[in-house]
Amino acid sequence: MKTTASSEMEMIELLYSLGIPAEAVLVSRHGKLFPETAQISKSGEAEIIFYKHKPPQFRPGEPPSHWKRAAYSPNCAYCKSAPAVYLPYAAQHLCPKHFRRLFEKRVKRTVRSYGMVKKGERAGVALSGGKDSYSLLHALISLREALPFELVAITVDEGIPGYRNRAIEVSKKRCRELGIEQHIYSFREEHGKTIEEIADQGKENPCSYCGVLRRKILNSKARELGLDKIAIGHNLDDVAQTAMLNLIRNEPLRFARFNEPLIENEKLIPRIRPLRDIREKEVAAYAFLHGHNYDSGRCPHAATALRWSVRHELNSLEDQYPGTKSRIASSFNTLQGIVKDSLKEKRLELNECRICGEPCSEEVCMACKMLSDL
Amino acid sequence: MKTTASSEMEMIELLYSLGIPAEAVLVSRHGKLFPETAQISKSGEAEIIFYKHKPPQFRPGEPPSHWKRAAYSPNCAYCKSAPAVYLPYAAQHLCPKHFRRLFEKRVKRTVRSYGMVKKGERAGVALSGGKDSYSLLHALISLREALPFELVAITVDEGIPGYRNRAIEVSKKRCRELGIEQHIYSFREEHGKTIEEIADQGKENPCSYCGVLRRKILNSKARELGLDKIAIGHNLDDVAQTAMLNLIRNEPLRFARFNEPLIENEKLIPRIRPLRDIREKEVAAYAFLHGHNYDSGRCPHAATALRWSVRHELNSLEDQYPGTKSRIASSFNTLQGIVKDSLKEKRLELNECRICGEPCSEEVCMACKMLSDL
Repeated sequence: MKTTASSEMEMIELLYSLGIPAEAVLVSRHGKLFPETAQISKSGEAEIIFYKHKPPQFRPGEPPSHWKRAAYSPNCAYCKSAPAVYLPYAAQHLCPKHFRRLFEKRVKRTVRSYGMVKKGERAGVALSGGKDSYSLLHALISLREALPFELVAITVDEGIPGYRNRAIEVSKKRCRELGIEQHIYSFREEHGKTIEEIADQGKENPCSYCGVLRRKILNSKARELGLDKIAIGHNLDDVAQTAMLNLIRNEPLRFARFNEPLIENEKLIPRIRPLRDIREKEVAAYAFLHGHNYDSGRCPHAATALRWSVRHELNSLEDQYPGTKSRIASSFNTLQGIVKDSLKEKRLELNECRICGEPCSEEVCMACKMLSDL
Repeated sequence: MKTTASSEMEMIELLYSLGIPAEAVLVSRHGKLFPETAQISKSGEAEIIFYKHKPPQFRPGEPPSHWKRAAYSPNCAYCKSAPAVYLPYAAQHLCPKHFRRLFEKRVKRTVRSYGMVKKGERAGVALSGGKDSYSLLHALISLREALPFELVAITVDEGIPGYRNRAIEVSKKRCRELGIEQHIYSFREEHGKTIEEIADQGKENPCSYCGVLRRKILNSKARELGLDKIAIGHNLDDVAQTAMLNLIRNEPLRFARFNEPLIENEKLIPRIRPLRDIREKEVAAYAFLHGHNYDSGRCPHAATALRWSVRHELNSLEDQYPGTKSRIASSFNTLQGIVKDSLKEKRLELNECRICGEPCSEEVCMACKMLSDL
């Protein structure tokens, strides 16, 4: 096992407490934990376990209480074959096939209920090569069986050495294998500077630059490519974090801006989030089952972001009060409708940026403001 | 010093790092930390320090950076006399007189801007004897100099042995000294059961019972006493926690229910929160400067409450990102208006509880439901 000592120890202790022989478990394809998705929660409960050879053998009379009835039937809940994933909230083991089926059914439900994609549309998936966008690509491909639409991939290279480059290789290889048309754009070519160079200029929060500059590339290129929608890999955890951030940053009007753009404008390509109802850990498991074997770790700049702290606090609350993230996402949904309605009477209008022509609310768009400031 | 070893050690280390001789500092009247208000933040910065005899003596060239200019003039920013309180966000030392003046000015501004009390009204302060309500009592007394109104105290004895009883003694003594009319009601007499007995029945979350049953006593007794308003000691920290809880519990419509009741009804006495813009630590300092020397510690049932975890997470975020709580409170204010407006079209009506006659939204009020369930 190539995992870090503390994680490995945690894993072995956990397995021991569950009565599972350590060699029965493959934590990831290369025997490495995904540190970003922490399969072991703080309370010591494994949320997702991948079995290497066979389902776990419990010592009689010793199943831990939180494995409940699943502990007594460690087979796939649907087909009795060897399981790959355990979902503690459902107390179910699932084999790869049935986990994928469940996952794709949920994505389909989300896409339908928000009317995210229509038949015959041309959608682009924002594909970084990380687990979220990799899962999104596969889920959308499976969705096309029921709902035919065109699908291309857009990849943005922000220029973060040792972090983004390998993920981009993963994305290129996968697009080739799947026959998906991929378009790659870089900060260097589009904005003249990598995010690394911007961070080196001593900008306090490179993440806010990164977000604004990436969104600008996605929107303008999606328009050039004639796309109707841009699909983003945000999952349930991201949604809950965003809700908290709207409160914490005192930007409550942003509650209105999640599902659809506030103002319809033909130059603004709508962004959709088909994974918004699915937990981060399950998104990671789905990517893994589709052959994603690259753990990009954490962006070297993430530590400076408030989002990172909020993520940590939310994980800790979810640990103590399971369901916290889902409840926050539901609140977000309710507030979204209310805040959006409240803005209806204000006649919001979009201008075109005096410098680049992109739609924006002021005279110059945020990206051009940031770039002129560098 | 009667404080716990770890707190004392932290304090001594802190003083050492600040170049202050330990004997110059009185942490509280009895040399004991208020554990509830943690004068020492996790980052090791003292937020409020009480000086015993004289202002701190800095070793030349060694003032810590966060004491900024105040470090060079350790006297009251207004009168140059010996300071009692240090406000890091303002980089100001203040003597007791000027700290009290600042505090009371803020309370006055809050009361005015929300129209909380009008001249000649009769207000009741919900007085537990803890630091929040003790500060509120004194702040309202000082407010009466500019805005004459009647003031009485209502104290509710929930029946929590070793926690509430001493606080009630503090409140009785103080009301006698100040000549404030006090009315004391108990769960035992009003509801037939103490909260301790309810918790002993194995109810999972005694805090929710406690809140509902206490509010019922406050409202019905305030009406009997002919009060126009009930003043509650909620501070800025409480407001920020409540905002987070509204999201986390998926109760976004509660954002509408903070400043004023959603529905006006003559049987529902409006609750006001004059300390809502003031940080918990400053409320504690104000109580202390007014002779409050009783640290009730933490309610023995608080550990079971989600609010306690949220409080902890918020303190940790505030530590990393100062101003977090204020920003959340501002978001709350904005959302309050928006959500309330959205409910205007729904014709909300209040019934009278079939059992007790108190105003409620359903046929039986929550308190009667809970009591019949015990």
